[in-house]
Amino acid sequence: MKYPKGSKINHTKQISYANRGMSLENDINLSNEYYLLNDIGIIHKKPTPITINRVEYPSRKDAVIKEAHFKIPSTTDYNGIYKGKYIDFEAKETKNDKGFPLINIHEHQLKHLENIVKHGGIGFIIIRFTKYNKTYLIDINPFMEYVNQKKRSSVSLDYIEKNGYIIREKFNPRLDYLSVVDEVYFKGDNV
Amino acid sequence: MKYPKGSKINHTKQISYANRGMSLENDINLSNEYYLLNDIGIIHKKPTPITINRVEYPSRKDAVIKEAHFKIPSTTDYNGIYKGKYIDFEAKETKNDKGFPLINIHEHQLKHLENIVKHGGIGFIIIRFTKYNKTYLIDINPFMEYVNQKKRSSVSLDYIEKNGYIIREKFNPRLDYLSVVDEVYFKGDNV
Repeated sequence: MKYPKGSKINHTKQISYANRGMSLENDINLSNEYYLLNDIGIIHKKPTPITINRVEYPSRKDAVIKEAHFKIPSTTDYNGIYKGKYIDFEAKETKNDKGFPLINIHEHQLKHLENIVKHGGIGFIIIRFTKYNKTYLIDINPFMEYVNQKKRSSVSLDYIEKNGYIIREKFNPRLDYLSVVDEVYFKGDNV
Repeated sequence: MKYPKGSKINHTKQISYANRGMSLENDINLSNEYYLLNDIGIIHKKPTPITINRVEYPSRKDAVIKEAHFKIPSTTDYNGIYKGKYIDFEAKETKNDKGFPLINIHEHQLKHLENIVKHGGIGFIIIRFTKYNKTYLIDINPFMEYVNQKKRSSVSLDYIEKNGYIIREKFNPRLDYLSVVDEVYFKGDNV
């Protein structure tokens, strides 16, 4: 079978997947760099989990992955240490204007966050509503409380506004979520 | 130019890179699974960091990475939470019989571990000497003390034996490094 000139069966895109949620991810990465450089906290994004099927070695020192697949992540994207505490979170953007659809987050990631809290860590979700360009931090406990009521498929923006905290954008750090962490988890501490 | 039958320019190996340090990594992963299932601690291995250059979409639901490169990791391989504390470590095997060559670990990984301790976390290195099949846990502080003396290029086995702690192999968990963490970091605690 012949295909018209210029078309292919396997459509190739250049790193297009990387743009999914890029701007929130980018804001958080820049903020994490700022926190690290200024000795405020050590928080890193975990690499994208993949299964590698084939590696080629064009030269002794060079290894090129020639076939790999994305894996479902077993944890969240971000973790680290802040003021001596373990912190762990997932960050997601949504175009939805009424709420955060739960299809955006894996159930075992939510379980992971609940488990972190059980073990004495801090666990939350950062959600950006791109339509309003508003970014919220919501602790995993109130989040799950809502989810568990009637097995919901999304968390309403209204609920997030009432139970979460807005994260303001600044020049530097771009998205100062640790000042919100201070407010939520270290209130009254003189650290 | 012709090559003899059966030989290739680009030598292709099947996931051969994955075998580097596989057995120690495997032991730690199995132990981490045990710790997670038994609600002892939440420690995960971070995925291998890569840069993705090209992704193909053979079907709407399937994404295949067709070109990617390994990146130098910016942190260590393992981190998580244990007894409410942030813990972070790197694990390495060596065939060397006299010491641990520092070429096996990136300088910024050592700096990362020192930084973790400064922020109130627990940071160490797990080193296996494959020749003797002995595995040690050594805190980052004594490790760096030795390294910083005269800009050494390896840490002697003798020093590791004196300043580190042996991790015994068991049936389950395979490599019970958290019991050593108890001994080293939680001595006297009634947790």
